[in-house]
Amino acid sequence: MATTSRRRGRGHDPESVLSAAVGVFNERGYDGTSMEDLARALGVTKSAIYYHVPGKEQLLARALDRALDGLFEVVADQRAATGPAIERLSWVVRHSVRVLVERLPYVTLLLRVRGNSATEVAALERRREFDRFVAALVKEAAAAGQIRAGLDPALVTRLLFGTVNSITEWYQPGRGTADDLADALLAMAFDGLRV
Amino acid sequence: MATTSRRRGRGHDPESVLSAAVGVFNERGYDGTSMEDLARALGVTKSAIYYHVPGKEQLLARALDRALDGLFEVVADQRAATGPAIERLSWVVRHSVRVLVERLPYVTLLLRVRGNSATEVAALERRREFDRFVAALVKEAAAAGQIRAGLDPALVTRLLFGTVNSITEWYQPGRGTADDLADALLAMAFDGLRV
Repeated sequence: MATTSRRRGRGHDPESVLSAAVGVFNERGYDGTSMEDLARALGVTKSAIYYHVPGKEQLLARALDRALDGLFEVVADQRAATGPAIERLSWVVRHSVRVLVERLPYVTLLLRVRGNSATEVAALERRREFDRFVAALVKEAAAAGQIRAGLDPALVTRLLFGTVNSITEWYQPGRGTADDLADALLAMAFDGLRV
Repeated sequence: MATTSRRRGRGHDPESVLSAAVGVFNERGYDGTSMEDLARALGVTKSAIYYHVPGKEQLLARALDRALDGLFEVVADQRAATGPAIERLSWVVRHSVRVLVERLPYVTLLLRVRGNSATEVAALERRREFDRFVAALVKEAAAAGQIRAGLDPALVTRLLFGTVNSITEWYQPGRGTADDLADALLAMAFDGLRV
């Protein structure tokens, strides 16, 4: 174990450990990253990391919670609960885009989770809970005649959040604000590209 | 080297080797797959694979060409070259969805390529050429006033193909035909969800 003063001297608080770990997970893949890799990326010893976190899987859990907590704040908001379903859906999409932009590496990591450990299974279950909330909203908007007739709500949900999630593939800070992005995405998906 | 008769006896023609390899690449990641892994998945010896293909990277190249050739057939078609730009764009999107559904594992592999070898760099360059074709079409449609005003064509291109590509995340044979999928995607992106 490194001494407390050495650890503090490197400035490696739990937050910077988490942030660096997520970067390495996204680059090498979680399964391909060892605690040695993390220590090297952080420029500290493995024991300095173990001082902050019990192990690699707990780092993954904290990182996935960072993404999921953001998404659950969106659906727990009053504005996701009142008003016409189509407007609530639009609000949820807009603020999901914001969470994605603000927590980009965390959401990127979440979208790659395939269920290879208890932590990943739990994260997938929370993600599905979010998806069910959105799917129910789409279904409600469709039932209220607020969505174009003939569209399967389950398919609309997949395509809509497929569009949102695809932002992780190319977004870089500087490529427009979250609001610019959400404006364009909502204009396309809700109003249509075609004049 | 296995004898020709043994190889033929296992029915491992180049096509089944390629198809099995793509499945293993998508499951384990290309970098994480060895020729031993491929031989085990195919139930043959490594030399039986080497009879059909010089190595792992050539398998990757053939697999990526399978996806890219499909996409380039779409943009080379006469229907991508004549008529209003918005209709050509719609046609290209529809048939890109078809290629994605028909060649799902190959397109899935293509979308994961990050440029880690000469083969990957070449595939990325062909993919960018396809993207440039679509981007030019979106720009032309916007310039002709056929796309909702105020939308950045580059952003529209990213969002539109983000939606198309996201299908690889969840599509399974049986979840609708390519045409059903394209109908729903085009209804959302071109006409809008909102009534």
